Amino acid sequence: MTLLINADRLRADFEALSQIGATGDGGVDRPCWSPAHLEAQRWWLGRAAEAGLAPHTDPAGNVSAVWPSAQPGARTLLVGSHTDSVPRGGRFDGALGVLAALEAARSLREAGLSLPVHIEVIDFADEEGTLLGLLGSKALAGTLTAAALAAPRGGRPALEAGMARAGVAEAGLLAARRDPAGLAGYLELHIEQGPTLMRNAIPIGVVQGIVGIRSLRLTYHGQANHAGTTPMDQRLDASLGAAAFTLTARELVLRDFPGCTLNIGHVRLAPGAFNIIPGTAELGVEFRAPDLGRLDDLQSVLLGLADVVGRQFGLTPQAEALAGDCAPTPLGARAIAALTAAADSLALRHTTLFSGAGHDAMSLAPLTEAGMVFIPSRAGVSHAPQEFSEWEDCVNGANVLLRAALALASAP
Amino acid sequence: MTLLINADRLRADFEALSQIGATGDGGVDRPCWSPAHLEAQRWWLGRAAEAGLAPHTDPAGNVSAVWPSAQPGARTLLVGSHTDSVPRGGRFDGALGVLAALEAARSLREAGLSLPVHIEVIDFADEEGTLLGLLGSKALAGTLTAAALAAPRGGRPALEAGMARAGVAEAGLLAARRDPAGLAGYLELHIEQGPTLMRNAIPIGVVQGIVGIRSLRLTYHGQANHAGTTPMDQRLDASLGAAAFTLTARELVLRDFPGCTLNIGHVRLAPGAFNIIPGTAELGVEFRAPDLGRLDDLQSVLLGLADVVGRQFGLTPQAEALAGDCAPTPLGARAIAALTAAADSLALRHTTLFSGAGHDAMSLAPLTEAGMVFIPSRAGVSHAPQEFSEWEDCVNGANVLLRAALALASAP
Repeated sequence: MTLLINADRLRADFEALSQIGATGDGGVDRPCWSPAHLEAQRWWLGRAAEAGLAPHTDPAGNVSAVWPSAQPGARTLLVGSHTDSVPRGGRFDGALGVLAALEAARSLREAGLSLPVHIEVIDFADEEGTLLGLLGSKALAGTLTAAALAAPRGGRPALEAGMARAGVAEAGLLAARRDPAGLAGYLELHIEQGPTLMRNAIPIGVVQGIVGIRSLRLTYHGQANHAGTTPMDQRLDASLGAAAFTLTARELVLRDFPGCTLNIGHVRLAPGAFNIIPGTAELGVEFRAPDLGRLDDLQSVLLGLADVVGRQFGLTPQAEALAGDCAPTPLGARAIAALTAAADSLALRHTTLFSGAGHDAMSLAPLTEAGMVFIPSRAGVSHAPQEFSEWEDCVNGANVLLRAALALASAP
Repeated sequence: MTLLINADRLRADFEALSQIGATGDGGVDRPCWSPAHLEAQRWWLGRAAEAGLAPHTDPAGNVSAVWPSAQPGARTLLVGSHTDSVPRGGRFDGALGVLAALEAARSLREAGLSLPVHIEVIDFADEEGTLLGLLGSKALAGTLTAAALAAPRGGRPALEAGMARAGVAEAGLLAARRDPAGLAGYLELHIEQGPTLMRNAIPIGVVQGIVGIRSLRLTYHGQANHAGTTPMDQRLDASLGAAAFTLTARELVLRDFPGCTLNIGHVRLAPGAFNIIPGTAELGVEFRAPDLGRLDDLQSVLLGLADVVGRQFGLTPQAEALAGDCAPTPLGARAIAALTAAADSLALRHTTLFSGAGHDAMSLAPLTEAGMVFIPSRAGVSHAPQEFSEWEDCVNGANVLLRAALALASAP
């Protein structure tokens, strides 16, 4: 097989799209449904139309370009990512995946192939969650609820303003579900956003799944007291519980939970004065694991540790599981095999890995055969203007996407 | 010597004063120059007048009752404390010291003695710092500045409102200095506000000095990053520096700095999100020591630890000394000897200790012979309605105060 994308055309598209919402220091500022984001969508749909693909916008504000199959009753292979960014984010995250999907569709079409499925290049709304998070892919999967729309994480006024700019209605968001029977799969190229591929000098990562995420609010209760008159050995200082938990939890994860992560992103001591011993310490704990077994094990180890640390310092621990956790999402075996075979066909070294970040594939994997391919991110930096991937890696990733799409499309 | 206070009269006064601003659960709410505080001052001055003492109010709002000496050119022995409380504080803190001083003056006068010094029972304004902190005693010592009055810790509007209620003018506060040549000393009875006396079942503590206090803002700088995609062993997580410093600093103080205290009263992680590795951690560090040598040593050990912990986790520490530190204040040798001898004369077990909390004696010790006697606080609790001392201990303390005042007054 000698089928390859047109790397020069992809690069020209990538450089043009990087100018829309450019921050001037290498990044882009294209929060979902901002004027720059809407301009980016219009621009790439124009490029798709020049290549003979048919534009399509669904009632959730996902925008697509379709190369239809001539076969009656054909299903649809979705290939894409997102053109929205976090505020002052990088130019690769999402945008590369949409343009690589467009380039793959163009290349397949130019190759004169006749496929038994429609190829739909798709740009999902609000992957980054400026408004709600995976808004477009959840709408397409039918898992978006009115309750979620009532209390979006970016606030209801921002969501309403964005919907008005994009011409999207609430009823449309709730009616955008696609029938899974009509889908042949979903493929996405994305930057890793972590350091693993770069560190190991491996150009291709075949994603096995997306980690599950849980969050706890852990509070230690001690006794607030005078910081000058209470001897050091007679305190019930809640800050000691917070500190010991922070250090030991990290050590346990490093030693016993490879592939898992833990973050203590905020701590609040109360009353919070220089001269009062902290009576309570509240920690925001988030942990991630590739599968449900390890997620459960890690949770149970963390809760056990919370108790032991409490005893150590005479504190009472209180752990509250927080809403909004994500189950681990395994990706499709056929998609994984297609991506692996594509990398092999290109003689590209590859490895398997799990995605520590969320992606639209989380919404789609329960419905259809979903797969993701990662390329190296320099220093693992993402969500910042310094985000960077070597162009050679971008081209390799796009070729893997192209060949895996052809494989899934040929044997849907 | 058989001179003793009238314990029943002191108890009646104490119970009456505890009703003024009573919180209903054993505490009092008498922030400086609140209506309840002003009522408390009027009430005890009335009791003093009934006993033949002359009321006196200085331009700083300190209120006194004087038993004048007949001797020409007599100096003044101050004996007192404060009747203001923290918001919803205890009924012993300060009030016991004022009433015991009143009782001592009455008892001395009733004993038919003729002393070579004036005895002035004094109730200092704003010891607790609702407005500024040690306001009245600093004004009397001449160490209150216009700059401090311009930015008081309780805010300028609260200070101005309090001054208006008390009839105190700014010019008066700055002109209330007493000539130290006219002072014969200062004695104060106070509850310990810590657990040491109660724990060791010792009824009398003779205070050697008041600890020095310093504060630091310690900030660790790491690298904010994605909490899902950054492997655990490749993070520059500022929370680890905060945690390790908190635990190790405590261990070092416990082992190498007896009599010193350390408090980490607040911590702030930034950016402060569940899913972002903390890039910076800011700690509020306060430490106290009885003498300048240990205060300097402890500071140098803490700064050394901050560096070592930074290296341990790849973080950059930044330590900033904060304004408003207090130098350690030794109390007067003759006052200490008089209090010790008084306890011995009453066959009361006593110990020496340092005050971990600030008191008006800090303002007065540089000017005159200042001494303090502590009695046990149940469980060390203070600044709360649960604050409690056994009545027997209160009476013992008042008798020590009485006899030490007589000794200092007799040989001024």
